[in-house]
Amino acid sequence: MSHTATLLIDCPDQKGLIARVSGMLYANGANILHADQHQDHEAGLFFMRVEWELNGFELTTFQEEFSRLAPTLEMHWRLEVSSFKPRVAVFVSQYLHCLIDLLYRRQSGELSCEIPLIFSNHDTASALAEFYGVPFHLVSIAPDTKAAAEAEQLRLLAEHKVDLIVLARYMQILSPEFVALYPNRIINVHHSFLPAFIGARPYHRAFERGVKLIGATSHYVSEVLDDGPIIEQDVTRVSHRDQLEDLIEKGRDLERVALSRAVRWHLDHRILSYGNKTVVFD
Amino acid sequence: MSHTATLLIDCPDQKGLIARVSGMLYANGANILHADQHQDHEAGLFFMRVEWELNGFELTTFQEEFSRLAPTLEMHWRLEVSSFKPRVAVFVSQYLHCLIDLLYRRQSGELSCEIPLIFSNHDTASALAEFYGVPFHLVSIAPDTKAAAEAEQLRLLAEHKVDLIVLARYMQILSPEFVALYPNRIINVHHSFLPAFIGARPYHRAFERGVKLIGATSHYVSEVLDDGPIIEQDVTRVSHRDQLEDLIEKGRDLERVALSRAVRWHLDHRILSYGNKTVVFD
Amino acid sequence: MSHTATLLIDCPDQKGLIARVSGMLYANGANILHADQHQDHEAGLFFMRVEWELNGFELTTFQEEFSRLAPTLEMHWRLEVSSFKPRVAVFVSQYLHCLIDLLYRRQSGELSCEIPLIFSNHDTASALAEFYGVPFHLVSIAPDTKAAAEAEQLRLLAEHKVDLIVLARYMQILSPEFVALYPNRIINVHHSFLPAFIGARPYHRAFERGVKLIGATSHYVSEVLDDGPIIEQDVTRVSHRDQLEDLIEKGRDLERVALSRAVRWHLDHRILSYGNKTVVFD
Amino acid sequence: MSHTATLLIDCPDQKGLIARVSGMLYANGANILHADQHQDHEAGLFFMRVEWELNGFELTTFQEEFSRLAPTLEMHWRLEVSSFKPRVAVFVSQYLHCLIDLLYRRQSGELSCEIPLIFSNHDTASALAEFYGVPFHLVSIAPDTKAAAEAEQLRLLAEHKVDLIVLARYMQILSPEFVALYPNRIINVHHSFLPAFIGARPYHRAFERGVKLIGATSHYVSEVLDDGPIIEQDVTRVSHRDQLEDLIEKGRDLERVALSRAVRWHLDHRILSYGNKTVVFD
Repeated sequence: MSHTATLLIDCPDQKGLIARVSGMLYANGANILHADQHQDHEAGLFFMRVEWELNGFELTTFQEEFSRLAPTLEMHWRLEVSSFKPRVAVFVSQYLHCLIDLLYRRQSGELSCEIPLIFSNHDTASALAEFYGVPFHLVSIAPDTKAAAEAEQLRLLAEHKVDLIVLARYMQILSPEFVALYPNRIINVHHSFLPAFIGARPYHRAFERGVKLIGATSHYVSEVLDDGPIIEQDVTRVSHRDQLEDLIEKGRDLERVALSRAVRWHLDHRILSYGNKTVVFD
Repeated sequence: MSHTATLLIDCPDQKGLIARVSGMLYANGANILHADQHQDHEAGLFFMRVEWELNGFELTTFQEEFSRLAPTLEMHWRLEVSSFKPRVAVFVSQYLHCLIDLLYRRQSGELSCEIPLIFSNHDTASALAEFYGVPFHLVSIAPDTKAAAEAEQLRLLAEHKVDLIVLARYMQILSPEFVALYPNRIINVHHSFLPAFIGARPYHRAFERGVKLIGATSHYVSEVLDDGPIIEQDVTRVSHRDQLEDLIEKGRDLERVALSRAVRWHLDHRILSYGNKTVVFD
Repeated sequence: MSHTATLLIDCPDQKGLIARVSGMLYANGANILHADQHQDHEAGLFFMRVEWELNGFELTTFQEEFSRLAPTLEMHWRLEVSSFKPRVAVFVSQYLHCLIDLLYRRQSGELSCEIPLIFSNHDTASALAEFYGVPFHLVSIAPDTKAAAEAEQLRLLAEHKVDLIVLARYMQILSPEFVALYPNRIINVHHSFLPAFIGARPYHRAFERGVKLIGATSHYVSEVLDDGPIIEQDVTRVSHRDQLEDLIEKGRDLERVALSRAVRWHLDHRILSYGNKTVVFD
Repeated sequence: MSHTATLLIDCPDQKGLIARVSGMLYANGANILHADQHQDHEAGLFFMRVEWELNGFELTTFQEEFSRLAPTLEMHWRLEVSSFKPRVAVFVSQYLHCLIDLLYRRQSGELSCEIPLIFSNHDTASALAEFYGVPFHLVSIAPDTKAAAEAEQLRLLAEHKVDLIVLARYMQILSPEFVALYPNRIINVHHSFLPAFIGARPYHRAFERGVKLIGATSHYVSEVLDDGPIIEQDVTRVSHRDQLEDLIEKGRDLERVALSRAVRWHLDHRILSYGNKTVVFD
């Protein structure tokens, strides 16, 4: 895979945005590999993602030029280079299916990231962490030790320069203060088709309601429980023959897929959040 | 298609139910075409559906025998014969996609029923009703005329001996009194993945929430809005590119499928309701 | 819906294509509503679709400018305006589900086109055509009259200035000569998941093979049977309980969706064909 | 989970089969948990699966009785008890995603079986096998050593009393002699939607054909390549943006699911094969 740069932009919509950005890239000799835009006509917003080859491209020059342009167009923007591997911390409790999936996908190269630490409030994942050579941190959490545990988590995250936190069926609710420190940088998987069955025991409630499809949702974590920007959702069919355990079991496959896709897209810098929504570029 | 009888049973679970029922059918010389059972182990309930050929079968004799057996096993049961075509009334407002679909499926033989009347509070469907040769009844409904309109509807339903009412995107809420008269005999399609987005404007709310899948749900109508036993649900993928109109448009295809399947299964006597759930035999 | 122009381009990939095109649009004051690109890195090809508002835009000026630019970049290109409604001829035999669907979608505004004629080798569709006010042409086809029938079809297509031919379960195979006259302008729906079950009786063969999913495929018609560029495919689950008739019935819903999506995308100028593939812009 | 027995039957269809079987079970005091039947009316065949509780049930007595009944009805039948854990050998080559999935599902209890050995012609899986404590057998295979390798495999399978062989992306073709020794006891996953793309490099050919959906198929291995009875199939959507690597990557998730479901259903004694088809009881 070639060495590339990706520019992510959102700003008020106006004429000439694509021309200005692509023109500046062209002027700097960029060979564009992918370009995608989106306009939210209602909100009057413009979103753009451009990826180009870095071989023989003067990134610093372009960056300086662009930093002068961006403010004149009220742009929020990020510039990412493929050579940098984001550092991901995985939080997990007792269910390991999502963790196993993430570790395998990283090993296979599907997920382009480092995983410097796995954090858990249970010991269940330690052997697995060791097998994949990832430092495992166990801090049991009780109501009265929650604050201390979060302080320890934050210390570890800072120490390991973590860019993204993945909650792989982590059964603790993070405090608003914690969440506020990682805006759009914490991805959670909720085991229901949001906004249905927000909160605890979604499979139990789905079973009681007699739904014919169950789902899973991956989203960025916001201050409000299960209310952050949705990144991906998937569902599968259930019938009257499926007992609660069957829902839980079928759901695991949905959770793995919904979560790993979200993490993949985040790492590929394909997600832009605005308000409570996401733009996920193909 | 051969002339068949279908027996539907639900009762407290106990040993020997299948043996007793299939034994009595065998003793009467029944040639069973389909048999299906389900046990809800939690609720301790047993459900059974048996379909057999009627050619040369003494239905009355069997019916008498079975009526004596059933009470001893606390059975609720129904006996349906394929030669009887249930009479279906379709209620519709301004959107015609579900109605068109139902009329085509009946014409093609997918839906084995009579449609003696179409009722609407708008004139939109009249030409279509005429094309398919179905009497069309228009009664405009205002808050103060709602009671009168329902009275007229009930008169029509009685006059035409209607067995099933299908709400094909009928935008009026039926009164609890009306609903109570047709328990598990009114099928509605709600344009969301219930229990998400109960009530009005589900597509608008789905759009605002930024979901990545939209759905439709067909269910029996109960006293509580959008809370009756779910019969079928389906979903389709949407992205940030889909504006509200796209959701509405994509949703129409879901509504047609979710509703027509529910009607089909009801007409084939494949649905058993209990509590707020349905058993839908394959 | 606003009055817009859509530019479709494919050409050898090289630096600056987006900049050149968007730059020229910007210079002409275009307000871009949608822009999408795709690069086939293997084939070294570039594809672009841009849609912009026409209100107060000098289309002729731009068109002249662009006609000078295009050859220098070896571009194939088309310019379409939303005010022009493509003229679609529907060919149908005895099964009406796809035709009904297309006629409804046009009436509801989903399909932005004229339907000046329906052609069939059976009388089945005549009443429906009349109901929707579309001229119906019946020419029965026998092996020895096929050539004459095609001549008559071509005469009608020319007379009505038809832009697109939709084969809505039309059971006759068009001659290579006929197909050659409408390259990428004939859309067919094949009732299988291509390339599985090419040719006759796909449902029968799917049933014999014991597949667990059946499908439908819409594609542009090429000289080779069922081998043209695929536009859309969809599948649904079947089980051992599904007999041949069930496959046929379930398949009808797939055919309707696969065909109508393809027609919709073609009419929205979202499809670019190259080699035996399609680029379908979202 | 309670201790149960499962009876699987296929025989020529005739009146009274359900009555005879359920009657004999009732007479022996069986508490039936699940019962399912299927009739192939075309082939005139009857299939039945009954599962009942074993606590306090005289299995031997019933077995003797049933062995006398079965021949009189030309029944093929099997009696399985849940306490017996089938012994599964996994064959794998270089891709580990299916193996990881199977090992996790067994550990989590989804797959009720022993895995006494993993066989591979590459060393890739050895660490994983060790982590899960499964003996790993490496025999590199060259054209001239293939026969010897199969002999060694057969020796191992016999030594470990293997009941089921799972080909988890095992890239060697088994000899007809080998296959003949394990009829309907070898499950393979093919990385295409069979019967499309039979044989080598299905993703490459799917990519070249420009399909819009890719699939995976799990099936029992028969003498003819990729032609055995299909157990499960699944598909996912692809677009022009998906390059070959994307198809391969997306396909991995399909392969895992299609294979693990097939293994799960086989272990739960829910599959009956006849001719080239499968009955998979829910």
